[in-house]
Amino acid sequence: MRRYFPILTWGAQYTRDTLTNDLLAALIVTIMLIPQSLAYALLAGLSAEVGLYASIAPLVIYAVFGTSRTLAVGPVAVGSLMTAAAVGQLTAQGTPEYYGAAILLAFLSGLMLLGMGLLRLGFLASFLSHPVISGFITASGLIIAAGQVPHLLGIKAGGHNLIELLGGILSNLGAINLATLAIGVSATAFLYWARSRMKPWVKARFGLSDQMAGVVARTGPVMAVALTTLATFALGLDGLGVAIVGEVPQGLPAPTLPPFDATLWAQIAVPALLISIVGYVETISVAQTLAAKRRQRVDPDQELIALGAANVGSAVSGGFPVTGGFARSVVNFDAGAETPAAGAYTAVGMALATLFLTPLLYFLPKATLAATIIVAVLSLVDLGALRRTWDYSRPDFAAMAATILVTLGVGVEAGITAGVLLSLILHLYRTSRPHVAVVGQVPGTEHFRNVERHAVVTVPEVLSIRVDESLYFPNARFLEDLIYDRIAADRGIRHVVLMCSAVNEIDTSALESLEAVNARLKDSGVRLHLTEVKGPVMDRLKRSHLLSDLTGEVFLTQYDALKKLVPEVTARTLAACRRDTLRSVG
Amino acid sequence: MRRYFPILTWGAQYTRDTLTNDLLAALIVTIMLIPQSLAYALLAGLSAEVGLYASIAPLVIYAVFGTSRTLAVGPVAVGSLMTAAAVGQLTAQGTPEYYGAAILLAFLSGLMLLGMGLLRLGFLASFLSHPVISGFITASGLIIAAGQVPHLLGIKAGGHNLIELLGGILSNLGAINLATLAIGVSATAFLYWARSRMKPWVKARFGLSDQMAGVVARTGPVMAVALTTLATFALGLDGLGVAIVGEVPQGLPAPTLPPFDATLWAQIAVPALLISIVGYVETISVAQTLAAKRRQRVDPDQELIALGAANVGSAVSGGFPVTGGFARSVVNFDAGAETPAAGAYTAVGMALATLFLTPLLYFLPKATLAATIIVAVLSLVDLGALRRTWDYSRPDFAAMAATILVTLGVGVEAGITAGVLLSLILHLYRTSRPHVAVVGQVPGTEHFRNVERHAVVTVPEVLSIRVDESLYFPNARFLEDLIYDRIAADRGIRHVVLMCSAVNEIDTSALESLEAVNARLKDSGVRLHLTEVKGPVMDRLKRSHLLSDLTGEVFLTQYDALKKLVPEVTARTLAACRRDTLRSVG
Repeated sequence: MRRYFPILTWGAQYTRDTLTNDLLAALIVTIMLIPQSLAYALLAGLSAEVGLYASIAPLVIYAVFGTSRTLAVGPVAVGSLMTAAAVGQLTAQGTPEYYGAAILLAFLSGLMLLGMGLLRLGFLASFLSHPVISGFITASGLIIAAGQVPHLLGIKAGGHNLIELLGGILSNLGAINLATLAIGVSATAFLYWARSRMKPWVKARFGLSDQMAGVVARTGPVMAVALTTLATFALGLDGLGVAIVGEVPQGLPAPTLPPFDATLWAQIAVPALLISIVGYVETISVAQTLAAKRRQRVDPDQELIALGAANVGSAVSGGFPVTGGFARSVVNFDAGAETPAAGAYTAVGMALATLFLTPLLYFLPKATLAATIIVAVLSLVDLGALRRTWDYSRPDFAAMAATILVTLGVGVEAGITAGVLLSLILHLYRTSRPHVAVVGQVPGTEHFRNVERHAVVTVPEVLSIRVDESLYFPNARFLEDLIYDRIAADRGIRHVVLMCSAVNEIDTSALESLEAVNARLKDSGVRLHLTEVKGPVMDRLKRSHLLSDLTGEVFLTQYDALKKLVPEVTARTLAACRRDTLRSVG
Repeated sequence: MRRYFPILTWGAQYTRDTLTNDLLAALIVTIMLIPQSLAYALLAGLSAEVGLYASIAPLVIYAVFGTSRTLAVGPVAVGSLMTAAAVGQLTAQGTPEYYGAAILLAFLSGLMLLGMGLLRLGFLASFLSHPVISGFITASGLIIAAGQVPHLLGIKAGGHNLIELLGGILSNLGAINLATLAIGVSATAFLYWARSRMKPWVKARFGLSDQMAGVVARTGPVMAVALTTLATFALGLDGLGVAIVGEVPQGLPAPTLPPFDATLWAQIAVPALLISIVGYVETISVAQTLAAKRRQRVDPDQELIALGAANVGSAVSGGFPVTGGFARSVVNFDAGAETPAAGAYTAVGMALATLFLTPLLYFLPKATLAATIIVAVLSLVDLGALRRTWDYSRPDFAAMAATILVTLGVGVEAGITAGVLLSLILHLYRTSRPHVAVVGQVPGTEHFRNVERHAVVTVPEVLSIRVDESLYFPNARFLEDLIYDRIAADRGIRHVVLMCSAVNEIDTSALESLEAVNARLKDSGVRLHLTEVKGPVMDRLKRSHLLSDLTGEVFLTQYDALKKLVPEVTARTLAACRRDTLRSVG
């Protein structure tokens, strides 16, 4: 029970102090979440109130099932963009079908996450490498920001990728609405200032404590909402063409069911899988980072269940896909949240907002929400990662660059798919041509190292090869080729010793290759030996014919092999002083 | 030039003896190839003469470009089945569109192989693991044999998988044609006998030499063709409902061009890729096996070019996809072929057959060709491989069984795709949860081994971990989790030593994990050390921040690390006799 309901563990130790801290954190997160939830619903192509709905039930459900003490779930920028891309392919924004498909997306994604959690398939998320995720988030941030620019300018332009978006913006520049532009630019400037400079300014100006100044600074988005709404109402800016949020239905969401339409389910299955995996990776990364800071643990498989249940809960309460958000969770953590109960209190705050604040949102300019989104997502863009990855690893750079380019140029689903496929292919390519070293003995020791990197001793009649890779199907033929080439090039070789310290697996393909190598070396009077075979590899080899057919022996260490095959040379080298760095003897 | 035209190398050393040997081998292969080429054309759903066309130009072209001395290219059973499956999805057999699509399949497959050869992408073929290939060939053999049964019985039944085929056969059993059955069963029995018993019988009966008896035994299929054709003609069996080959156009093929239709090209691209890869894997396996027997070398990338050119040549001379065939190449090898010129002489033989023998094929019963195919393909079926693979590796067994079941139950393209995907996913799953060992010092040596398998000495304040896998994205998070769990469980640990002897790569994802581990261990006062880092891994780490941020050190060996960190214990253990197998000290 405690495994599936972590609330039983932390709930039992709940104290008055914990309550105070959780309530304070919930207040701060609620203030931050109100404008964000409205904005991300619009980003997903939905009505503003859907964002509020997605910020109530999922938070309560996560509090019951989640293992992270401080994760804050709800609508996030990348998830909203992916929702818009997935649902926008099927039907037009603003229709009941669009809303139904978004609900279904949350429902299906929730079921998938639940299923993966119950089957303990969390490892699937690791197929998304860091460079692919980082590239995808950077590109998504750029697309989201570009997609909000039309709202700042008061023009109409849309698209699923950067090229379509920029094309739309450029061709509509003549239609800019100046009143919208004024609100949009000033809101952006204010939010940018609030994000970077407001805290020190408040501290100096009003002599507040560091913590209080931080709380005040986080009200920036709510202040922008309040000020621009007031201005629009007072100056009648909606009459000048400023798009406003308008009527937002008051009251809690009614229970909904996703549409049960087999064609729609089939169409939305792949996007739901992508959104599940991307959302889970973001969630688990944030949760683990924050947990480690307080030496707490999160359970990756239970997080799948918690996030899955939260998404199903979002769907049946009229919301859209939710994820554990990075910025929001950090705020929750910094504000002192101690248990997932803080999330439940945030949900109460959001429910109160839905009940009582919605009439006040009538005159809220959409440009303000666009500014909120732009300032939030540009912090996700990390182009410096390209440079760092280039320095460290060209294949990882290629995967990252491909993810960014395809996401920007084609769209989010194509981008993430291309990144995953390319990283798999590059991995297989690399392991299909593994690093191979001919090794010799380091004088004065029992160690064997690459002849090209160390001053070591080798013996002409023994070819010692260390393959720095598991032997499996992509490189099975590579090893065969390599050994035949060496044997053909040097007729003096009488023993081939395969040093298997880096061989973590020998699969059936490689086993058949080794059997072929053994048989052919036998024909040429060369014996094949294995050394430093790992326990699990050896256990499996014992179930094959290779060991009984082997012309040579299996030695515990490379040193044992050489001691047996060429005793006099090996003993002399072990005795040798390290300063006698012979390259070769004999 | 010599790289792309191996004919320049072997042609320069061509002697009269070589000519004699090549001519003899060509004669034997021609006798074998005439009935096979007709049969495989029918298997592919094409007219019999297309098989002859595919056995002329491709052989000449391979002789120019190929690096194998003894490979015999031409139509093969599995390739013909894949052609029927691919083209049969698009259009009906017997139409000009069907023939055009088969020509296009050869053309496109040839272009793909050429492209892969020029870009040196031969490694792509290694994605087909041995168990997948073996399972695929077994399943294809069963489907081909089942597909020929209706021809033996004189009934109509078709299908792309075993279920459809067996269903069709069972529901048409009432329509069996007895004359066809008589020819089919006696031809099958004769061919089976010729394959297994004819050689010793001829040797004993006529006192022939071993070699001559072998030549006579290989005429079995031609004798079956001649006898059943004569019987059909003499007894007028075609009037009794025996299906015959009928009119076969006389003369060499006219040059053709594949249809240039973008839709068709798009539809046929994936089947062409699958047929290319399967055909190439079969070709290169045969070529390398035979080359190794005579200590010759084949160039895998040049073989792509040669096979690609042969397929393009087949397409423009009215043929269908060709491959290096296993049985045929072995016959060529055994018959003493010394150079690819033997293939060119075989082509001359086939051209002569096309010019002069086709009228004689009018009364050839299709049941005889079906019998030829059945006897040939049943030797491909190797169900014992399932048992051997089960014993050695369950994941490889799963991939093999999935390939067989999906091929039999759905079809060839689905089967090969399922096998490749499953072997990739199983590989990633395995590496995402690598084998990890806590290691200790083997008393009396400088070696460190798994504490659970060897009697070794460990020190409480040092946790030495050996990860038996490269550190890369599928397992980056796994290592983080593991270290945190260990540190949380044992507060006495002051040093974590990562022994990297089996770590062949640290990619960007794993680097970021190590940086996170290092930073978090620092907070808890634990130092992180690396040992036995391989040269290429170290080169790359030097381009990152990890080494400068590392709280511990990088040691050449695990022994050096322990000597520095706990000098007294390590020296004592090294001095200890092996018989003092302490499990733990301190």
